Amino acid sequence: MDDIDKKELLKENLPFFNKLTSDEINKLIHKSSIIKYKKGELVYSENSTCTGVLVNIYGQFRIFISSQSGREITLFKLLDRDICVLSASCVFKNITYDINLEAELDSLAIIIDSAFIKSLSDNNSYVLNFLLNLTQDKLSETLSLIERTIFLSLENRVANFLISEYNLTNSDIIYVTHENIANNLGSAREAVSRILKKFEKENLLKISRGKIKLLDINGLENVL
Amino acid sequence: MDDIDKKELLKENLPFFNKLTSDEINKLIHKSSIIKYKKGELVYSENSTCTGVLVNIYGQFRIFISSQSGREITLFKLLDRDICVLSASCVFKNITYDINLEAELDSLAIIIDSAFIKSLSDNNSYVLNFLLNLTQDKLSETLSLIERTIFLSLENRVANFLISEYNLTNSDIIYVTHENIANNLGSAREAVSRILKKFEKENLLKISRGKIKLLDINGLENVL
Repeated sequence: MDDIDKKELLKENLPFFNKLTSDEINKLIHKSSIIKYKKGELVYSENSTCTGVLVNIYGQFRIFISSQSGREITLFKLLDRDICVLSASCVFKNITYDINLEAELDSLAIIIDSAFIKSLSDNNSYVLNFLLNLTQDKLSETLSLIERTIFLSLENRVANFLISEYNLTNSDIIYVTHENIANNLGSAREAVSRILKKFEKENLLKISRGKIKLLDINGLENVL
Repeated sequence: MDDIDKKELLKENLPFFNKLTSDEINKLIHKSSIIKYKKGELVYSENSTCTGVLVNIYGQFRIFISSQSGREITLFKLLDRDICVLSASCVFKNITYDINLEAELDSLAIIIDSAFIKSLSDNNSYVLNFLLNLTQDKLSETLSLIERTIFLSLENRVANFLISEYNLTNSDIIYVTHENIANNLGSAREAVSRILKKFEKENLLKISRGKIKLLDINGLENVL
């Protein structure tokens, strides 16, 4: 990809682009890479060297944490133009928590060098303000995740997961395994399977190998 | 309290104080209040008008969320010089999640007017940077809370709670009810009571009305 195309992608996807000086823009182009990721590819983990800030151009990423015993919970999904700064934790001393980041679909992303984004934010208060807004946003999302995880029943959370996949894909066939759902919700596969079977008995959905067909969206929305 | 004392308290407790202009300092003094809170007093809740940024001078505060059914989970505790910006959510459009804030001990705090801290951060990049660091810090703490809540057993979390109270108070007598512990951990009182009774049988602690005497700290540390 040549620098003109890269500049265009940066301009389209970075809300602070128009607040940069031409010198900052030139450095940004130089310090950014456009990278394709395959579905399922692990972009960043606790053991990674510092990847940098990831800006999703198209596709979908999942940010999750995992336990020593292999259980997982999804924190956020990155949809179009969403940005992950947690993968640049090395340059922000107050980000002390390491996450995992994987592509959920074939995706295209901008990766901005960690040290560069830090120095840019030190010198440009629009960028600094952008990072504050983004972090406040992720903090709010995380608090809301805690609320749902602690206070809602697993039945309700499985139903919510299926409805949000339905809304995301515009399809009543959801291509997930029971383990995928458990790994999104921080639960165990067995518990999720039990709930899906209960939903099937209630004619809310039909389970097949590797996919679930939703039969009654309203019914799923009413699960408490 | 006169302005000279107030200035001294602000200087001691705000890391960015020395980066303010004398004009900003004068406005800060004018826009700050020093307020005493009684143990148990609710400082801020979802229904509050916008309280402002709270800086703990001495005492202890608890930030928590609660469910419609009355269950609670503690997100953070504010110990000496800790700062809560979530109680100024009205001026930060990306803080979309409302928390509750209560004094856990008789406490003294600085409350800085919300609109003032916003305009200060818009004009002073040290303050903006301070807010970014603080928010990154709270995001990291929240992610770590999710990890503990989802992946650790309730037994382990009850043991950890007792040990952290022991470290906080330097006393092996912890003045809490079973409901207090449940409300800290986002759990139900019955589940916590069952675990405490198990610990008592194992000679790890002794339960009395309104307090728990820890008998074996090492034993509690080894609970998985």
